[in-house]
Amino acid sequence: MPRPLSMNVDRLFPADRGVRDIARRLYGQVGTLPIISPHGHTDPEWFATDTPFADATSLLLAPDHYLYRMLYSHGVPIEALGVANRKGASPADPRAAWRLFSSHTHLFRGTPSAIWLNHVFAEVFGFDVALDATTADFYFDRIGELLATAAFRPRALFDRFNIELLATTESPTDELVHHKAIRQSGWGGRVVTAYRPDPVIDPDHEDFWASLQKFGQLSGQDISFWAGYLEAHRVRRRAFIEAGATSTDHGHPTANTADLSPPEAEALYYRILGGVRSKEDAELFRAQMLTEMARMSLDDGLVMQIHPGSYRNHNAKLFWDFGRDKGADIPTSTDYVRALKPLLDRFGNEPDLTLILFTLDETTYSRELAPLAGHYPALKLGPAWWFHDSPEGMRRFREQTTETAGFYNTVGFNDDTRAFLSIPARHDVARRVDCGFLARLVSEHRMAEDEAAEVAADLAYALPKRAYKLDAVRPQA
Amino acid sequence: MPRPLSMNVDRLFPADRGVRDIARRLYGQVGTLPIISPHGHTDPEWFATDTPFADATSLLLAPDHYLYRMLYSHGVPIEALGVANRKGASPADPRAAWRLFSSHTHLFRGTPSAIWLNHVFAEVFGFDVALDATTADFYFDRIGELLATAAFRPRALFDRFNIELLATTESPTDELVHHKAIRQSGWGGRVVTAYRPDPVIDPDHEDFWASLQKFGQLSGQDISFWAGYLEAHRVRRRAFIEAGATSTDHGHPTANTADLSPPEAEALYYRILGGVRSKEDAELFRAQMLTEMARMSLDDGLVMQIHPGSYRNHNAKLFWDFGRDKGADIPTSTDYVRALKPLLDRFGNEPDLTLILFTLDETTYSRELAPLAGHYPALKLGPAWWFHDSPEGMRRFREQTTETAGFYNTVGFNDDTRAFLSIPARHDVARRVDCGFLARLVSEHRMAEDEAAEVAADLAYALPKRAYKLDAVRPQA
Amino acid sequence: MPRPLSMNVDRLFPADRGVRDIARRLYGQVGTLPIISPHGHTDPEWFATDTPFADATSLLLAPDHYLYRMLYSHGVPIEALGVANRKGASPADPRAAWRLFSSHTHLFRGTPSAIWLNHVFAEVFGFDVALDATTADFYFDRIGELLATAAFRPRALFDRFNIELLATTESPTDELVHHKAIRQSGWGGRVVTAYRPDPVIDPDHEDFWASLQKFGQLSGQDISFWAGYLEAHRVRRRAFIEAGATSTDHGHPTANTADLSPPEAEALYYRILGGVRSKEDAELFRAQMLTEMARMSLDDGLVMQIHPGSYRNHNAKLFWDFGRDKGADIPTSTDYVRALKPLLDRFGNEPDLTLILFTLDETTYSRELAPLAGHYPALKLGPAWWFHDSPEGMRRFREQTTETAGFYNTVGFNDDTRAFLSIPARHDVARRVDCGFLARLVSEHRMAEDEAAEVAADLAYALPKRAYKLDAVRPQA
Repeated sequence: MPRPLSMNVDRLFPADRGVRDIARRLYGQVGTLPIISPHGHTDPEWFATDTPFADATSLLLAPDHYLYRMLYSHGVPIEALGVANRKGASPADPRAAWRLFSSHTHLFRGTPSAIWLNHVFAEVFGFDVALDATTADFYFDRIGELLATAAFRPRALFDRFNIELLATTESPTDELVHHKAIRQSGWGGRVVTAYRPDPVIDPDHEDFWASLQKFGQLSGQDISFWAGYLEAHRVRRRAFIEAGATSTDHGHPTANTADLSPPEAEALYYRILGGVRSKEDAELFRAQMLTEMARMSLDDGLVMQIHPGSYRNHNAKLFWDFGRDKGADIPTSTDYVRALKPLLDRFGNEPDLTLILFTLDETTYSRELAPLAGHYPALKLGPAWWFHDSPEGMRRFREQTTETAGFYNTVGFNDDTRAFLSIPARHDVARRVDCGFLARLVSEHRMAEDEAAEVAADLAYALPKRAYKLDAVRPQA
Repeated sequence: MPRPLSMNVDRLFPADRGVRDIARRLYGQVGTLPIISPHGHTDPEWFATDTPFADATSLLLAPDHYLYRMLYSHGVPIEALGVANRKGASPADPRAAWRLFSSHTHLFRGTPSAIWLNHVFAEVFGFDVALDATTADFYFDRIGELLATAAFRPRALFDRFNIELLATTESPTDELVHHKAIRQSGWGGRVVTAYRPDPVIDPDHEDFWASLQKFGQLSGQDISFWAGYLEAHRVRRRAFIEAGATSTDHGHPTANTADLSPPEAEALYYRILGGVRSKEDAELFRAQMLTEMARMSLDDGLVMQIHPGSYRNHNAKLFWDFGRDKGADIPTSTDYVRALKPLLDRFGNEPDLTLILFTLDETTYSRELAPLAGHYPALKLGPAWWFHDSPEGMRRFREQTTETAGFYNTVGFNDDTRAFLSIPARHDVARRVDCGFLARLVSEHRMAEDEAAEVAADLAYALPKRAYKLDAVRPQA
Repeated sequence: MPRPLSMNVDRLFPADRGVRDIARRLYGQVGTLPIISPHGHTDPEWFATDTPFADATSLLLAPDHYLYRMLYSHGVPIEALGVANRKGASPADPRAAWRLFSSHTHLFRGTPSAIWLNHVFAEVFGFDVALDATTADFYFDRIGELLATAAFRPRALFDRFNIELLATTESPTDELVHHKAIRQSGWGGRVVTAYRPDPVIDPDHEDFWASLQKFGQLSGQDISFWAGYLEAHRVRRRAFIEAGATSTDHGHPTANTADLSPPEAEALYYRILGGVRSKEDAELFRAQMLTEMARMSLDDGLVMQIHPGSYRNHNAKLFWDFGRDKGADIPTSTDYVRALKPLLDRFGNEPDLTLILFTLDETTYSRELAPLAGHYPALKLGPAWWFHDSPEGMRRFREQTTETAGFYNTVGFNDDTRAFLSIPARHDVARRVDCGFLARLVSEHRMAEDEAAEVAADLAYALPKRAYKLDAVRPQA
């Protein structure tokens, strides 16, 4: 007999009755606030074309590396789960892939994926029995039926999810056609882009050379010169701003920054372009470009985000067969104190610059990030990220940053996801965990409840809008 | 008046009444399951000869570096506690040593040693007053009397402890006579060995040269050749498998692995043998041998364990006077992401390889180990180890690994101890802490209670059997 | 309407009713014990002259980098908060500065500063409304009035705070005139100094050369010779001991120690003196001097403290304009295992040496510091420090050190503050958090309540006296 599925109203709140009562009251004031999603990886084409999603596997399983990485760790081939390889689509039958996944749900016990999935199943699709091997077909069929209805098309879900703003992330070489289509469509949903220049900044990126060429073409600049390359960034940033962007994002292996003299920077660029660059040159170029991006942000107002510290494509064989973003990125120990100093020496005291720091190395929360953000006007802390975007991870983030940086040097929640249907679930988890943390502070008489209520609302809604300068972005109907 | 001693039925469960009720129910289903001890350091001679243990000091104090390291840190000479030095046995009178220890029990408040000792005192020996200076003689006498009885001989205790399987750890140069004697004795207890080749793999091991010579003799291989050295490993692994081994164990200073070409590996071996090796060569040889061991494991099925990151014999004077394993091993910062890549590039995607990782560096739980184990089919996570084999340590392990790796990439509990009488206490602590952690997840509606009960039983019993392939090992009566 | 201000009697105790009841009982036995403050940075001139404090801004805001760093991180210029720059006093009107601060109190929600401030406001000044923009003037005026009264002069507050002993920290070049004045004044308060030789040991210290010259003069030694330099330390240490010092303190960038041969050490000193030293020489000299200090401590009995791991003056512009200690010191990853080995190889086994270790890198608690302190007779652990001197920070300290080092390798609390009025608040937080931690152990049946009561009293009072050898220091009336 299948297990029942239901979402308890007190889920994720601390167990202690007194604390839970406070958490429930706090959450009562923020649980239904509109969703601000200032950073993520959904596909703007969904909202441009409003095409129905196909089926459970292609919507929920094949694009979600949180899910298939876990099954892969237990010996399940990822091609059997609908994941495309470099040569093309997965040969797996979507229903068979879904059954395979459904027979492994016990692997997710205690993980945020279980929470997100159950939220999607119960709240979005209305299931009241849990997914397992016995309910796999029932799920697959029912999800398929619902996805074919108007209520489950992308824009309808966007509206139903009460999303006030959703940011996607594009390369400078993206022509932003979907964003343009969204704006011209007359639909009222606010979907904006963000400038993610890694492919034209990181010489180790597999698409660097092709991207660079397209970057020059799109911007109309002669990028064989350093000045032209910088100008190309300015041009594309302007185009992104026109498509609603308020932020840039930088996913480098480290948080290293540099502040070279203009001739040094120029010479470095020519070594990179000449293809004679060393490994150190590549790192130095990424480092220098963060400082260049900060300089441009002071001019054009784009908020910077740095997401460092992932050892990308750690599994050589999997990368060879399937390409990037397949659940084989592993965090590494990350330094911020020395890494950021060149940029901070140059721009750290600028109140008009906003540089939001993320980490995969939780040891830096209390040791480096909170002290840095609790001092430098330009710095803010992004929320618990990726592997740490989870109840325990978020709790550690608050426990380890708040005492030094406070709440107001943080920026609320980022869902950072490509799993569109899970966005309400993810924001709900963040709001519940924050309310639980605040409730503990209240119960320990470290904060009054009315103060906590103010903080809870700021974390859920006001801070992301302010930190990402989203008030300035108006619906463009 | 001495303090009473009793083991509360709710010990180690969370304080909250609702959570505690759940924990108690979960524990009720696993508390009395048989003990699987797949990795440890008890002496097989105990079970081979079944000789009575001598006295409290030689059984409980002198071999337990957790205990005498703490007294040593407060200025008590360890020779006064019955610890032998390199020249021979301690000159200390066992009773005097016991009294000295008993007068320092307050030092252990809040430590797992206090929990384990009190469990042994109350449950194994039946004491109902606590050990302190005033009860030292009473304890010493009573323990001495009991140890002389049949019920306290090693095999009787093994049976009483409900141990289904116990693994010891031996060097390849061990002739396994005790294991042979156990199997020929007709006694039904399952005591198996494990292959720990550090003395013939680590050029920095003090016994390296002597061990290497014996390794060649025992295996009948000409180890002056690289091929012969590798074959000697295969031969000894087979002998260990015949003595019930299902695993190997590797205690290196780092987790470094290498994947040299055969000619490079051979040349390295000759540099090692020639004694002209550099410090880097020694490290590289250890690294390469982990990959060689993985290759052999794919052939013969032995599960690999890596226990890296201990700075052995940190106290130069103590090492000089007393030798190794005297409580002066200190953990160090340990990298896994780069260290394991060569081995993982070669064998990480093999579902038939099981490589169990341990750490003394808790920062790697959420940053490196859980992401690695949550992706690679070959990897599993060993339980909280050594300094972290404790209530808080186990709790942190679950809190920091579960959300990314789940429960099913972990392998249940290892007691890893040479303190035989503490084995039930240690497994009991692990079961209680795991039930407490699961109870919190249930109370926060992150898991249903029937799921938690299944996980609790898996952690206590099924996972260690499966991960260490112990179902294949049958009692050999 | 302003928010009410009150100090709940149960503040900082765990929320669970059962645990809280135990915590309250434990705290009831230690809450009013006299304050032992064995390490801090108050100004001895206050107690020498007993001059009234001027106003709220100069007493509470301008010297407290915890406060103005937070406002600075939100774009408030620190000169507007009464902070002096290198050229002289702040141009800000004290009342205006106070108003500016008062309008930003929400930034401190969840921080220890909020707890300390509210304690000072409620308990020291008797306020029953909270500080915010609407009460800023009321606060400023009332504090001003009270500071002008006899009851708020430094010595009266010292007595009212029930401080049994307070240590300040001075450079070897300080002539200790205030300490002499205190002792000659007939006042019974015990205020002692501590020997902080960084300015004459750290070649990178901005005052190194000037300090060295004065060091030679004050000690009457020819410091152009290595022997004279060492003798100068001995002379000044004796002078500090006469002024009540029982400890030294060392604030180096790392915990590195060295144990050079005498000729090597001498040659190094001449390289330093000659100004031709490399960056490595500066680090090696600091390292060697820690070992020299340990050697002297074995002779004269001074307890050593090492406070490593702060990247001082990280903000180049702020340092240029305002000088050191302006809230821009950032913790860095810190190694102890390799760093301390040279000193420990030489003196680690000496029970007569006390070396108290601090850290800003919490990852070292369970990995390095607890294992080291749980073994070496010379080592003890200082309390959670600086950014970690907070409820969550203290809790993590206990959770991560106790199981390996126990309570009795720690030394109770240090307030380490220059904020005199916050001293009772800080000790109160430490006592409450420790009682809360102990109460959890009791409620989980890991310790009996009478044992916990003993530990609580030891942590609050007995351990700091013993570790810092303060019993030997008698009031010198």
